[in-house]
Amino acid sequence: MHPFRQYIQQYTLVPEQEWQKTCSLLQYQEIPGGHLLLEEGKLCRHVYFLEDGLLRYFVWRDGKDITKFFTNAPYCFTSQRSLVQRIPAQENIESLSPSTLWSLDRDSAFELLKYPSWNTFVRLLIQEVQFFTEQILEEIQQETAEQRYRKMLLTGNALVQQVPLKHLASYLGIAPQSLSRIRKKISAEVRT
Amino acid sequence: MHPFRQYIQQYTLVPEQEWQKTCSLLQYQEIPGGHLLLEEGKLCRHVYFLEDGLLRYFVWRDGKDITKFFTNAPYCFTSQRSLVQRIPAQENIESLSPSTLWSLDRDSAFELLKYPSWNTFVRLLIQEVQFFTEQILEEIQQETAEQRYRKMLLTGNALVQQVPLKHLASYLGIAPQSLSRIRKKISAEVRT
Repeated sequence: MHPFRQYIQQYTLVPEQEWQKTCSLLQYQEIPGGHLLLEEGKLCRHVYFLEDGLLRYFVWRDGKDITKFFTNAPYCFTSQRSLVQRIPAQENIESLSPSTLWSLDRDSAFELLKYPSWNTFVRLLIQEVQFFTEQILEEIQQETAEQRYRKMLLTGNALVQQVPLKHLASYLGIAPQSLSRIRKKISAEVRT
Repeated sequence: MHPFRQYIQQYTLVPEQEWQKTCSLLQYQEIPGGHLLLEEGKLCRHVYFLEDGLLRYFVWRDGKDITKFFTNAPYCFTSQRSLVQRIPAQENIESLSPSTLWSLDRDSAFELLKYPSWNTFVRLLIQEVQFFTEQILEEIQQETAEQRYRKMLLTGNALVQQVPLKHLASYLGIAPQSLSRIRKKISAEVRT
């Protein structure tokens, strides 16, 4: 089964005819690590399915590169506000590793909404993204960077292994040196 | 026109037949200020339309009451994760002023998803909530409490006038005394 159909079917069943229509609109793309898929200020024109790879969302503020979050395959992503409201994207999206993607252009993604399976999939996916965003917000409002990092370790979050320290630190809202100190402290606890 | 139909129609057109079905399932409710609509740990069983009034979402952490956000009428709200996943709510919802509500129970809200207008309305509403959550997250990651408060003043955010200082301070992640200092500083700038 096509990896994207398999992915959508985790949310809702896709009848053959509706899948054939979706499939005919997909574009395949392979990108190297460090590739900028979307640039802040530009219009986002696609919805992507990340079949394989790891991405980072980040913004530039006062010359500093700040990580908003990471996206790990398999996942469906876009710059939602830019895509929906046709306004310049407020974020950059870059690959942190070689990645495999399937994309749908804006018109196709909206055209597919007339199919019940796609409409339901999009609703459930946005809902899930909303839950994730709310969770990150709650963590930031209620926990220290150290607590959040320990939780990532405890839940076996793959990002801890795959993401360069500087990006992980900026995601946690601290300096790389502070994250190094937290790591050393935790290592010392484990050894004793 | 019913205020809830008027509200939904800001997102999508509601055919008469679909509205009649929605309307027949609505329950009207008036609550005083300070009323707890939902308690942390309990199951959220309703979707609400706030016709009039002001609400506050908050959590208890280490004996401290922390404000997550505010909801101003007219708006549609629920404790989304609790409602959808049938898990205990991770938040409290209270009225900050006398409020007028229309509610749909869980089964009714899900049953209505078979109607294209309700399905589309829910998708667009969740999308909007996602945008708001993402915006608050961005502000917290990138701005100081003072910058966020100044932005609220500049955009004429009604909350600044209506919400008690202690809740506004906890929403901004600072002590009430710090918010008082920021307010005095801004007042002094305005006078000079």
